[in-house]
This record gives sequence, structure tokens and C-alpha cells, in this order.
Amino acid sequence: MSDHVYKKIELVGSSPTSIEEAVVNALARAQKTIRNMRWFEVMETRGQIDDGKINHWQVTIKVGFTLD
Amino acid sequence: MSDHVYKKIELVGSSPTSIEEAVVNALARAQKTIRNMRWFEVMETRGQIDDGKINHWQVTIKVGFTLD
Amino acid sequence: MSDHVYKKIELVGSSPTSIEEAVVNALARAQKTIRNMRWFEVMETRGQIDDGKINHWQVTIKVGFTLD
Amino acid sequence: MSDHVYKKIELVGSSPTSIEEAVVNALARAQKTIRNMRWFEVMETRGQIDDGKINHWQVTIKVGFTLD
Amino acid sequence: MSDHVYKKIELVGSSPTSIEEAVVNALARAQKTIRNMRWFEVMETRGQIDDGKINHWQVTIKVGFTLD
Amino acid sequence: MSDHVYKKIELVGSSPTSIEEAVVNALARAQKTIRNMRWFEVMETRGQIDDGKINHWQVTIKVGFTLD
Amino acid sequence: MSDHVYKKIELVGSSPTSIEEAVVNALARAQKTIRNMRWFEVMETRGQIDDGKINHWQVTIKVGFTLD
Amino acid sequence: MSDHVYKKIELVGSSPTSIEEAVVNALARAQKTIRNMRWFEVMETRGQIDDGKINHWQVTIKVGFTLD
Amino acid sequence: MSDHVYKKIELVGSSPTSIEEAVVNALARAQKTIRNMRWFEVMETRGQIDDGKINHWQVTIKVGFTLD
Amino acid sequence: MSDHVYKKIELVGSSPTSIEEAVVNALARAQKTIRNMRWFEVMETRGQIDDGKINHWQVTIKVGFTLD
Amino acid sequence: MSDHVYKKIELVGSSPTSIEEAVVNALARAQKTIRNMRWFEVMETRGQIDDGKINHWQVTIKVGFTLD
Amino acid sequence: MSDHVYKKIELVGSSPTSIEEAVVNALARAQKTIRNMRWFEVMETRGQIDDGKINHWQVTIKVGFTLD
Repeated sequence: MSDHVYKKIELVGSSPTSIEEAVVNALARAQKTIRNMRWFEVMETRGQIDDGKINHWQVTIKVGFTLD
Repeated sequence: MSDHVYKKIELVGSSPTSIEEAVVNALARAQKTIRNMRWFEVMETRGQIDDGKINHWQVTIKVGFTLD
Repeated sequence: MSDHVYKKIELVGSSPTSIEEAVVNALARAQKTIRNMRWFEVMETRGQIDDGKINHWQVTIKVGFTLD
Repeated sequence: MSDHVYKKIELVGSSPTSIEEAVVNALARAQKTIRNMRWFEVMETRGQIDDGKINHWQVTIKVGFTLD
Repeated sequence: MSDHVYKKIELVGSSPTSIEEAVVNALARAQKTIRNMRWFEVMETRGQIDDGKINHWQVTIKVGFTLD
Repeated sequence: MSDHVYKKIELVGSSPTSIEEAVVNALARAQKTIRNMRWFEVMETRGQIDDGKINHWQVTIKVGFTLD
Repeated sequence: MSDHVYKKIELVGSSPTSIEEAVVNALARAQKTIRNMRWFEVMETRGQIDDGKINHWQVTIKVGFTLD
Repeated sequence: MSDHVYKKIELVGSSPTSIEEAVVNALARAQKTIRNMRWFEVMETRGQIDDGKINHWQVTIKVGFTLD
Repeated sequence: MSDHVYKKIELVGSSPTSIEEAVVNALARAQKTIRNMRWFEVMETRGQIDDGKINHWQVTIKVGFTLD
Repeated sequence: MSDHVYKKIELVGSSPTSIEEAVVNALARAQKTIRNMRWFEVMETRGQIDDGKINHWQVTIKVGFTLD
Repeated sequence: MSDHVYKKIELVGSSPTSIEEAVVNALARAQKTIRNMRWFEVMETRGQIDDGKINHWQVTIKVGFTLD
Repeated sequence: MSDHVYKKIELVGSSPTSIEEAVVNALARAQKTIRNMRWFEVMETRGQIDDGKINHWQVTIKVGFTLD
């Protein structure tokens, strides 16, 4: 692992249910075009409110992946 | 949306179960007196411990709502 | 001024034109219900984009005012 | 305590003498209208200078109180 | 909006005139290759000085856009 | 509680499932050697990715406990 | 440029009109005694309010200049 | 001093009276088990409120001490 | 006050007794060469420990003064 | 330079030897696909430990480059 | 790795020569009593000056190790 | 040391080779006009890139020195 170079990108995932699912959704979308994702870091957690209830969670993450 | 003014207030919600439920509880209480809540931002997550177990989660949020 | 107590509240103002006007709009709205506003601090500047152009600026400020 | 919701507000208290007294003064003023204050957090400490001496300290705090 | 995934990228725009125009210039350039830009956040504002005058403003923003 | 002294230590707990469980796991381990844990603060949330999916969450917390 | 040493100083400029003009005013004053100013960084933006309107903007900047 | 290694630990001291005394109390407790404490850094200042008055101050410090 | 330019400098004052006195000592020294000091902001509070007791407090402040 | 738009990306470079070499390695990899890199900013420095020794340094940087 | 719990401690290492050697020295001392150190994070870099030259570098790190 | 007052200034040093040398260069320049420099703190590390290689490192430090 010591000679790898990684790139980190910033994504925002959404979920009506939980913080965890919002991250899962962001990673599922990123997986379509990025190989070798290795780790993520949660940067910010927020959400939209509709009629006093949480409509969806929005979680900003940074994702690190190996540059081949 | 471009001519609205919003106010943000800071709340702390609690839950014995999860971060998400602590936020839900804070919003449920705020809903009693505040109309037009639009979004929230999680500021801090902490909790109380009792006999080595989590007694309850405490989540500090900022809530934005439209000033009529 | 040395024996005053101030309260600070957080507002978000909007403007299609400029950061300055977004702050002016937030203060104009706050002025309707708050007397004795003394100073503001810009906390965050962001904006909404529509078709590649800025639809409106959104500026979050804290406003300090004297508690009588 | 586990099912309480708290609100946090931001105040600035002043004192010619000390940081502690500035906080005491802010709380004394807040006590007039807020019940059930529970804790405070010091956010910022500053002061005004007059002729090379401290005219008064200004301490910004956040105060948490129980929403009934 | 609840099932979208967004990507955020970081840009620096320049302008001899104003902070706002520097942001507009960054977005105009980004618009050439990125569809569906939704919002921006100002991260840093600085500028270059020439002979005691501002030669140009440099504003760093993060831009969020929808991943299709 | 006013004459207590607390120590805070920093732990990282893991879980394949959720942020909450990662904190629970860290506290369960700490409970083996630390008496009188009182509260925790979430410092950082991240995770490892394997084949585009979350392998495990890693949550860094500070734990405060009473020094007897 | 690679062997230069720079000093950075912190200034607060004011303007009744705009953030940009407040920076220009600070630089104009600094130019009287400092040669070779190269760049500035905006650190804080605030303002004084009079009768619900902005009396003047106050912008704190750091200015970097070459030490000869 | 140039070849020493220091460890830093985080403590919270309390006092009904002042910030300074809260730090003194934390150090007095730490002194029972730690030799060679060299410096401290104040990380956070807060307090508990009882009936609108400060019940006790709580000051979080980091303490650095020499590892023999 | 609206057309003034201020400079801010950073000082560290010391006192065996209190945070307040450390600030007073820093300002007393600065007063010898700087006219028109207007305000200060506390940036950092720390101290040196000798034999388990506080030898002296060290308080870092920024001081703002009017440029004539 | 005043009409350029820059993009900033985040990379993590590794080296068994030094912080500087980790940055050099990240830039060497980026150079394969990015033209016109202009500057970098070190965001975070960490490393992996193996048997009490540093196995490799990991340095996170942001790299700014001109968008043509 | 997914079921491990880690503890993080904070150390300050010194070196007359380089940042890297200061970290190496801190880890060498920690290795005497801590098994299974896994990673470190650089928190702060500073140094002492003697007669205009660097007497020694002081680097604060956090070290993570596995709790068995 | 307990009755000293220190001033801190901010410098940026450069070096084609290393972070350490950039700091040394900044101190060497400061030594020409400042007596009694005591310590420095690294605030920011960045660098200029030329043709994919590091042209020079730029390290921002704060330097503390005794006011006589």
C-alpha cells in the first residue's frame, strides 16, 4: 500500500431513512464509474424537512480511491 | 425561493436509540411552535453513558425555517 | 456600552444580485420585529445555480442586538 | 433527562472586571425571560480598550435550556 | 430530490472587479463541461495586489451538481 | 458533580452495520478497564469500502469518565 | 519568487458600500507605509448596523508583502 | 529539552468560583499520579446553571508531561 | 468610525494569577509603543506547570488599533 | 493570470521516507493526466506504523491547475 | 480489521533536524510500552529558536493502536 | 519567563528543497531585524509547481519573540 496514490472526491448522498443509507446510496452511484474505492469520510450531515418531518437526509462524504 | 429570509435556531434532541431518532424528536418538539421548517444541519453528536452502556444520544442541530 | 447584554441570532438572506444585498434583505426583514440591532457577522456565503447562472445568493449572518 | 429537547441561544455579556462576571451578567439578564437554563458554553472572549486599559470584557456564550 | 446523488468540485474564479464576478466566471467555465450544476459554496476569498491596488480577486468555491 | 475531575480518552470503534453500533462496540471494550464512564462525543465518522460496499464503519469518539 | 520571504499583517478596512471597497480602503492605507504588497486573504466580514441599516462594512484581511 | 518526548492527556476540572480554580483542581488531581507535568492548554470552557446562577464551571484542558 | 483602518497584532501576556491579569500585562506593554488600541480578542489560553502547580498563565490575544 | 479559472483536486501521496517525497509522488502520478498544475496545499499528514516504525508517510494535498 | 477497537494517544516528539525525525523519536519512546501501534496523524508542528536558529522541532502527533 | 510579553508575527519562507529549509530561510531573514526570537508555529504548507515538479515549498509560520 505504501506506493499508492489516492484521489479523494466529494459526494452528497440522500436517503429518507438514515445517515448510513445516504452514504450507501452515494457509494452505489460512484461505484458505476470509479474502481477501487477504499475509504470514505463523513464531512457534513443535514436534511430537508417537509411538514415538520424529515423528508430526506443528505450526507456529504469524501471518498478515497486508488489511482491505478 | 430567491426572496425568502430564513432564521436558524439551535436545538438538542435526545433518543435512547439512534442519532436519527434524536433529530426526529427535536424536530417534533420544534414543530409545535415553528411553522415552515425547511432544513437542518447536524452540529454535534454526543451521548450519556450509564453503567458502560449508552443511556441516550444527544444530537445538536441547527434548523432553518422561513420567516413569513 | 459596558453593562449591556446582547443576543445574537442567525439569519439567511437572499439576493439575485450580490452578497451585500442579501445581507441588506435579511436585516430589513429582521428590523420588523427586532429593535436595537447593532452588528452582524457573515458566517457563510453560498448560492443556487440555474442553467449555469447564479439564481440567487444566500448569505448566512449572525446579528447582535441589545437586550433592553 | 433522556427525552428532553433543549434550545441553545447565543448571548454576549459584559463586565469591567472579569470573564466570569461577564457570563454571570449575561445569565442574569436571560433569567428574566428564560426558564430552566441548564448549561452554557463560552464561544468567544474579547474586550474593549480605553486609554490602554480594559474598559470591559465581552464574553459570548451559548446557553442551553429545556423546552417544556 | 430525495434520491439524487451530487458531486462537489472545487474551483477558483478570478475577476478584476468583484467577488461576485469571480464566482460568475468560475461557473461560466464549469458550465462548458458540467451539466446540472445546482449550488455553490464560497470557501475562500483572496486577491493579488499590484502597485498597492487589487489586480484581481480570487474566489474559491465548491460547486454541487447532480450525477445523472 | 461540581467537584469532580474527569479524564477524556479517544477511541475508535468499528461496526459493519451502523454508526451507533460502532460507538457501542468502542464503549463495550473500554468498559473492561474503565469505571465510571459518563459521556462520549463523536469526533469523526469514516469507513472502509470493499468492492463498492461499506465493509465497516469507523467512528472516533472521546469518552469522559470520573477520576475517583 | 522562490527565494523570497514574505510577512503577513492583519488589517481591518471599512466601507459604507461594499466588501470590495472595504478591502480597497485597507490596502490604500497600508500602501502609505508598506512597499511590495503582493496578495491579501479575507479573514472575516462583519458590519455595524444603525437604525436597521448597514452603517458600514468591516472586512478583516491578511496582507502579504515581500521583505526586501 | 530537545530530546524529550511528551504525552498530552485531556482533563475536565470543575469549580463553583472561577475558570482558574477549575484548572487548578484538575491539575491537583492529576498530580497524584502523573510526574513531570509541564504545561496545559485550555480547550473548552463551559458550566452548569442552577436556578439561573452558575453552579460550577467546567474547563477542559490538555496537560503535557515528560515521558521519562 | 466608518472610515477607519485598523491593524491587528498578536501578543502573549503572562501572569502567575489569572487570565485577566495576563491580558492586562500584555496591553500594558503594548501601550508603551502603540497609540489608539481599541479592542482585543483572546485567541488561546495556556500555562506553565511547576511541581504540579500553575507557575504562570499565558494568554495569546489579538489587539486592534486605529491607524492614524 | 487574472482571467484564469482553476480546478482543485485532492490527492494522497505516500513515501517510506519523507513528507516531501510523498507530495512529489502524488504530483508525479497526477502529472500523467493533468496539464498545467500550478500549486498545491498540504491538508493532512499521517502515516502507517509497522512494528513501532514508520512504514510509510501519507500526505493529503490539494492541487490547483489551470482549466484551459 | 472490522471488529477492532483502537485507542488514540497524543504525543510530542522533538528533533534538532527534521519533522520526520521528531515523529520517529516520539514513536520510538511510545514503542517501549505500547504494542500494536497502527497509524499516526500529525496535529501540530512547531519549534524552539535559539540565537535565530532552530534549536529543535516539536511535532505533536496522535497515535492509534489496537486494544487487544 | 513568567513576566515576559511576547509578540507573534506571521512569515512565509520558501525553499526548493524542503519544508524545514523554508522555515530556516524565513527565520534567517527575520533574524536581521528581530532580536530574541523564541519559538515558531507552522501554520500552512504549500508550494508552487512547474512542469509537474515542485518549484519551491512555501511555509507560513508564526514567530514569537520577547518584547524587551
